[in-house]
Amino acid sequence: MKFGRVIGNVVSTIKNEKLYGIRLAVVEPIDPDGNAIGNSEIVGDYLGAAVGNLVIWIADGEAIGKVVGKQNVPLRGSIVGIIDKVDLKNQNRIIKG
Amino acid sequence: MKFGRVIGNVVSTIKNEKLYGIRLAVVEPIDPDGNAIGNSEIVGDYLGAAVGNLVIWIADGEAIGKVVGKQNVPLRGSIVGIIDKVDLKNQNRIIKG
Amino acid sequence: MKFGRVIGNVVSTIKNEKLYGIRLAVVEPIDPDGNAIGNSEIVGDYLGAAVGNLVIWIADGEAIGKVVGKQNVPLRGSIVGIIDKVDLKNQNRIIKG
Amino acid sequence: MKFGRVIGNVVSTIKNEKLYGIRLAVVEPIDPDGNAIGNSEIVGDYLGAAVGNLVIWIADGEAIGKVVGKQNVPLRGSIVGIIDKVDLKNQNRIIKG
Amino acid sequence: MKFGRVIGNVVSTIKNEKLYGIRLAVVEPIDPDGNAIGNSEIVGDYLGAAVGNLVIWIADGEAIGKVVGKQNVPLRGSIVGIIDKVDLKNQNRIIKG
Repeated sequence: MKFGRVIGNVVSTIKNEKLYGIRLAVVEPIDPDGNAIGNSEIVGDYLGAAVGNLVIWIADGEAIGKVVGKQNVPLRGSIVGIIDKVDLKNQNRIIKG
Repeated sequence: MKFGRVIGNVVSTIKNEKLYGIRLAVVEPIDPDGNAIGNSEIVGDYLGAAVGNLVIWIADGEAIGKVVGKQNVPLRGSIVGIIDKVDLKNQNRIIKG
Repeated sequence: MKFGRVIGNVVSTIKNEKLYGIRLAVVEPIDPDGNAIGNSEIVGDYLGAAVGNLVIWIADGEAIGKVVGKQNVPLRGSIVGIIDKVDLKNQNRIIKG
Repeated sequence: MKFGRVIGNVVSTIKNEKLYGIRLAVVEPIDPDGNAIGNSEIVGDYLGAAVGNLVIWIADGEAIGKVVGKQNVPLRGSIVGIIDKVDLKNQNRIIKG
Repeated sequence: MKFGRVIGNVVSTIKNEKLYGIRLAVVEPIDPDGNAIGNSEIVGDYLGAAVGNLVIWIADGEAIGKVVGKQNVPLRGSIVGIIDKVDLKNQNRIIKG
């Protein structure tokens, strides 16, 4: 699973109807220190992650399909956790989420 | 899910028969600001995305299989939403689709 | 789905038995203009794509498993269409397959 | 499957409830010689890999779902083996885990 | 599917029990000419590929699960063919495996 930072939202009116009602967040991939490392992607969010939060995200939307009670939702990306801290023990460093 | 811009279409006569009747669009991957960031791919489209539209796309064709009433369609890429706007709150910027 | 050009074939005697009888083609990934953009891969072909043809290919072999009447074929790559032309409307260009 | 080194842990309070009780480790992708080769990812661990261990990891969490007795866990990454040694026979080298 | 060269083996004592008894080979990704093109991965092998062999490999272990009679094996990588030769017809070249 990847480290990411929530940087915004996407508004889409014309979309697959199974995506109705799902918040579409923009996530910037980061390294554990918070540096951007790649191109932003669009993911579903049902945890209420705020803009600026560090999150755990995956390229799969199955979890959100279950939460909203739909099957086969064509969502490929979701936030599955909000990070409190990253403890890099081998470097004796702790990074706050 | 990825940001993309529709830049054209592909015409293919000899193809897997489950692909018959599905519009094959060419999508250029972009960042949230609309800059091209990678190699174009071929995706199915059933939302009627016009050339130039910013879209949300995935590397999966399952959603289109359902729409056209076929199972196990060997389509790996589809447009699932047309973007109205991207709201990059952490930068106080809004990008129109 | 990706743009590719067929550049040859692979011969393998010792292989998973479910791969018996499937033509294994070498496909070079290309951009819509036909320029090589990455490392060649090995894919199954049942459409009879000739060396030099531009094709649509996917990293999945499910479609070929159905055609040859086998389940769970460990094939991860197949040609699903032969390209007649790519119409890049936003650039007023047409590329012949 | 990929070579990796465990470099720390992630603490997340607000997360998908199916992730409760699963240790989330930070794994740094490495080459067989132990050199870092890419961005760290977050994976589940149920083998008790210590910080500093070389491990075999995959971008899938299915195995952990079975171990903890849950289905459809939205975990995409897990440690499936701790490496004792890598025997690079073609170079007459053995690397200890 | 990818071109690869077998360069060694991995020994792991503590691992998911479904991996017991499966040979774990180290495969170096190559281009059709045998040049290394990326980072080595760990794959299962049941075809008896020798160190130095050119092989066809996939990022999936399903085929090996069937061979060893287990379901849901958390193996993500396997050798599915040993290459005899690659016939690059468009360049009038044949590369021996």
